[in-house]
Amino acid sequence: MATIYCTATSLDGFIADDEESLSWLFTTPGHDDDPEGRYGDGDSLDYDHFIANVGAVVSGANTYAWVHRELTRDGQEFAWPYTQPSWIVTHRDLDLPTGVTSFAGDVRDLHAQILEVVDGEDIWIVGGGDLAGQFADAGLLDTVWIHQTPVVLGAGKPLLPRRLRLHRRHIERDGQLTAMLFDVVGPEPRPGAEGDGAAEVITG
Amino acid sequence: MATIYCTATSLDGFIADDEESLSWLFTTPGHDDDPEGRYGDGDSLDYDHFIANVGAVVSGANTYAWVHRELTRDGQEFAWPYTQPSWIVTHRDLDLPTGVTSFAGDVRDLHAQILEVVDGEDIWIVGGGDLAGQFADAGLLDTVWIHQTPVVLGAGKPLLPRRLRLHRRHIERDGQLTAMLFDVVGPEPRPGAEGDGAAEVITG
Repeated sequence: MATIYCTATSLDGFIADDEESLSWLFTTPGHDDDPEGRYGDGDSLDYDHFIANVGAVVSGANTYAWVHRELTRDGQEFAWPYTQPSWIVTHRDLDLPTGVTSFAGDVRDLHAQILEVVDGEDIWIVGGGDLAGQFADAGLLDTVWIHQTPVVLGAGKPLLPRRLRLHRRHIERDGQLTAMLFDVVGPEPRPGAEGDGAAEVITG
Repeated sequence: MATIYCTATSLDGFIADDEESLSWLFTTPGHDDDPEGRYGDGDSLDYDHFIANVGAVVSGANTYAWVHRELTRDGQEFAWPYTQPSWIVTHRDLDLPTGVTSFAGDVRDLHAQILEVVDGEDIWIVGGGDLAGQFADAGLLDTVWIHQTPVVLGAGKPLLPRRLRLHRRHIERDGQLTAMLFDVVGPEPRPGAEGDGAAEVITG
């Protein structure tokens, strides 16, 4: 059982641009559209495998609002796209579909509440970055799985606005996307009073 | 002959943290320190090969100040670490070493000036992000080569504060670093009035 933050991101760490658009993501060719196809470094990263092990979905209020807006923009009735029990972390009073619960408070309490229903399956944090950061702050974020696009945006919604050391476990080329799976190691220290060693400047 | 922006970056697109430190970079194990070693997708990315083809170095004022500070922090006399003819883009009146010239103005004029001396060799933009962005604005940035660390910083000096589409040409694992070479395609469009297509939400 792991808590996994799985999202797409620009090369410079934005999960949505400064107009909350993902157009830059949807125009990036994945493995189905790219002659380069896929390669992996052993264990393949696979969405079907991932989602089959997800027992609960957690979303922040902005991510929920984005999904709601995108899925109703042509006048459709809204349906939450995940079948798993889901929680929206928000202080707002939202009219939520069946199976989706709102939560306001400390994510440690949310985590405990979710553990009672997931039966050993994984928890997927679909976004946003600050919600994933709250789990990391509490030591409850295990894994970060990103699909990185070859686009810089310069501004937008941040991937994970924290100072954290990760450990790259897998990397896979998925067309022009780069899929990377990381374990969360913990807070990345700042250079201490003991000094951070000699400067290293790449020289020619 | 290419103009290449080569730098290290955090996973969330910062080339230095909010205290201008690179401690998070120097503690990341590269291929010499990591049992995972290296792998490539064909053509190997190699610093020695890269630098042998560099005929000129360009740096912004902040990057120059950082190099100066780091290389003199133990009281050493300052020596610019690159043997190639070098330009510092600055409005300040700096006391520069031999072989290093200051430049203030439009990077298109700088580019033309450098072309007269490089004799077909590459131009290396060592930083910072905005200087690389000025070259990109002028259509004069060909290549972005990054070494990405498995660290998120949440704040700092931005990698390339522009909205640009790149094309990933090579990717290589270098210990816990991920080396990626990109061609610059051009400005990344914003979703237009014609619409950016249907929303795509990953569903489970």
